[in-house]
Amino acid sequence: MAVSKRASSSPASSGEAAFEPTRAARRHLVQPWPVAGEIGDEARGLIGEGDGVHVSDGEGNWLIDGPAGMWCVNVGHRRRELAEVLHDQAMALSYNSPWYTMNEPSARLAERIAAHAPGDLDHVFFTTGGSTAVESALRFMQFYNNVRGRPEKKVILSRGGAYHGSTFLSASLNGRPRDRDWMDGVDDLVVKLSCPDPFRRPAGMSVESFSDKLVAEFAETVERIAAERIGAFVGEPIMASGGVIVPPPDYLKRIAAICRDNDILFVSDEVVTAFGRLGEVFASQSVFGIEPDIITFAKGVTSGYFPLGGMVVSARLFDEIRRSNRSEAMYAHGLTYSSHPVGCAVALKNLDLLEGGILEHAREIAPYFQDRLKSLEELPLVGEVRGAGLMACVECVADRESRNPLTLDKEVGKRIDAHCHELGLLVRPLIHMCVMSPPLIITREQIDRMVAILHEGISRTMDDLRQEGLWNG
Amino acid sequence: MAVSKRASSSPASSGEAAFEPTRAARRHLVQPWPVAGEIGDEARGLIGEGDGVHVSDGEGNWLIDGPAGMWCVNVGHRRRELAEVLHDQAMALSYNSPWYTMNEPSARLAERIAAHAPGDLDHVFFTTGGSTAVESALRFMQFYNNVRGRPEKKVILSRGGAYHGSTFLSASLNGRPRDRDWMDGVDDLVVKLSCPDPFRRPAGMSVESFSDKLVAEFAETVERIAAERIGAFVGEPIMASGGVIVPPPDYLKRIAAICRDNDILFVSDEVVTAFGRLGEVFASQSVFGIEPDIITFAKGVTSGYFPLGGMVVSARLFDEIRRSNRSEAMYAHGLTYSSHPVGCAVALKNLDLLEGGILEHAREIAPYFQDRLKSLEELPLVGEVRGAGLMACVECVADRESRNPLTLDKEVGKRIDAHCHELGLLVRPLIHMCVMSPPLIITREQIDRMVAILHEGISRTMDDLRQEGLWNG
Repeated sequence: MAVSKRASSSPASSGEAAFEPTRAARRHLVQPWPVAGEIGDEARGLIGEGDGVHVSDGEGNWLIDGPAGMWCVNVGHRRRELAEVLHDQAMALSYNSPWYTMNEPSARLAERIAAHAPGDLDHVFFTTGGSTAVESALRFMQFYNNVRGRPEKKVILSRGGAYHGSTFLSASLNGRPRDRDWMDGVDDLVVKLSCPDPFRRPAGMSVESFSDKLVAEFAETVERIAAERIGAFVGEPIMASGGVIVPPPDYLKRIAAICRDNDILFVSDEVVTAFGRLGEVFASQSVFGIEPDIITFAKGVTSGYFPLGGMVVSARLFDEIRRSNRSEAMYAHGLTYSSHPVGCAVALKNLDLLEGGILEHAREIAPYFQDRLKSLEELPLVGEVRGAGLMACVECVADRESRNPLTLDKEVGKRIDAHCHELGLLVRPLIHMCVMSPPLIITREQIDRMVAILHEGISRTMDDLRQEGLWNG
Repeated sequence: MAVSKRASSSPASSGEAAFEPTRAARRHLVQPWPVAGEIGDEARGLIGEGDGVHVSDGEGNWLIDGPAGMWCVNVGHRRRELAEVLHDQAMALSYNSPWYTMNEPSARLAERIAAHAPGDLDHVFFTTGGSTAVESALRFMQFYNNVRGRPEKKVILSRGGAYHGSTFLSASLNGRPRDRDWMDGVDDLVVKLSCPDPFRRPAGMSVESFSDKLVAEFAETVERIAAERIGAFVGEPIMASGGVIVPPPDYLKRIAAICRDNDILFVSDEVVTAFGRLGEVFASQSVFGIEPDIITFAKGVTSGYFPLGGMVVSARLFDEIRRSNRSEAMYAHGLTYSSHPVGCAVALKNLDLLEGGILEHAREIAPYFQDRLKSLEELPLVGEVRGAGLMACVECVADRESRNPLTLDKEVGKRIDAHCHELGLLVRPLIHMCVMSPPLIITREQIDRMVAILHEGISRTMDDLRQEGLWNG
């Protein structure tokens, strides 16, 4: 039983000073979304520490964490309360099998989440993040329709610009450029509708007419495919990774009504919007006035300190299943880490923090955040600044008339990011866009600084683009 | 922005004494694998605390944790070293986005895992558990073949008795009874081969001939489907949740040779067998003599304290992709929690513990563990006790001649579990089987106690079955 290679020595025993994270990462660590030309030979910028709304880079410079990690560090970095819960729950009970047993933190968290969820959404199933939350909802829809004797009712409606995850089925719903170019999917099960992006509505069309057009497309699609074949519509209330697409005001309500009329499950993917990003624990009803059948969540539920996600399901659906006379039918679904005691304990404390003032702060400061960012529209490279709550997107355009982003150097987001990094801000570049979703604890002064850096970073990018002859705005 | 229901008060502010976990769980918590008749109205047995190889139940009784949670609590419960790392890493850096940045614990862990992996398996991609690890490997196979210009090479070979996860694609590989009865899958992409279970080989056939038969079936399947259409074979070296199926001695090597000859990726699913369960960090080469193209892992990598999994990939595959002239092609895959700094820090410390004596202990005590469990074969209800390292299965049969498990009351595993619980042992019932995979730190005395309780629990079950007229052994 000899192993083929010797492990490098443990950090404790030797070599601590000699370890070079970037060199080790280049050789051994594969990060998300690598391109073929660099796969297995690439290292990304080192982050050292986190504290409040800041993180430090490999050189020890402190930067404002503009995207809050990946839309998730809602209560901020270095929260002693969460670190202590991680320790204390691990010492109490670090793991139990959810197949055969149960732990108290998961029961407590399920109760609290159900109390926050709208309508009869009373049942909570836990996973390890957003992808597995969406997988759970879709596999539940399939199970539900199998048990109800309508196995053909399985088509899933999604939209251009959507992002729902990185597993085979959840990724099949994605509608952003590049998500699917070289990746396979379950295309016979998914139908894509138009992206509800008012900024890209047909020239001369009002937002109201644009909404009518989207709703008509939805209704026609249901008619064309037949409601009997459609299991679910899955949608983010605000498309996050697609570029913070805020749909027309009444759009979601009208889509929800068509779903209800046609017995199509409405899955509201709140992986980004829940747990404070829009100032509420859940946004579906309190912000958008809809009562979905299932809400999926992740990210902010633990502020990224622990991989946890899940779904909240309507009691009506479970009642129907229990009354189906298929009592032995098994929803054969669940993860080793479903209902993890440590993750649930972290989420409970995170919810205490949110309810203890952070949600209120987020609601209070959101108008200032949106207003200050909006001022960036004075820069000619900026086509639109849009957002809601504490999420926003700065979209760059080649020229404001055409709103065309494609004639521009595609790396414009990365260029802005590089300048901002030098100036003390981490942004999230998305092709020609920059997405901002800072920790919810951000202050007015920090917002001012963030916007000032963005202003300077975009101005420098404009200078570069002009000098390189890539843009003449 | 009003929410529709008020959250229950925080545990800190009131109601601590009044909280009833079982009542809350029944109303609000959905656990894995519920049946239709109980979904949304079920609570499982409460676990209170963990300590070493023990957990306490809701009444405060301490039980030996026979399955180590779900094959995962390898270094045991209440490890202060791991709790401290959870705390300390959360205070240093609790999260960073793996899309744009990198953290040191993930680079360090990738290097150490690569050093333990066989051959040129040098590149590590992290996920949140086993299902997402298998998804990553399969989506990588699809990407790899797309980039290499052979998009038709996508069929996945799996086997009866297999368990590979609980997402749409990974679950499509599952071959256990009940896994798929009411659940959908991607059936056009997956071909199932026979389960390599020597106990269920045809009557009168030698294990050698059984192995020949399995290998011939594999070769014929490759010929029938055509190697040009087959992307990967995915297999657990020892099928775990299928009932600790230890294949014939040379079977895996022979399958691996056919895969190599036909350019079919061999994915060794070591979610259960890695990180000490068989006494080694990885078992593929050191125990089974095979060098897979990809190894998937999870569970033991953090001893269940944190949801972490991943895959180790051969450098050859990445070299081929880098040289493909498709440099912009993107492996559009990755999770918010890929390369999580806290999870990777926990895994590093867990590896220190394993290498600091626990692996050695596991190798030393494994023969005693297997030998003592084997003694249960003296009980007439027990058809076979089998296993390797610190994983074993007690399979009950209606009668030893026919080896038929199906004529027996299907709940025999649950009956044994109930008796053992009363006597101080948690077992993992699997229909007519009990799976044992205790924390690797188990002592001889604890093994003796475990086996004595199992002996008594099975004996009491035999009495019950006889009295109820369900069995006449």
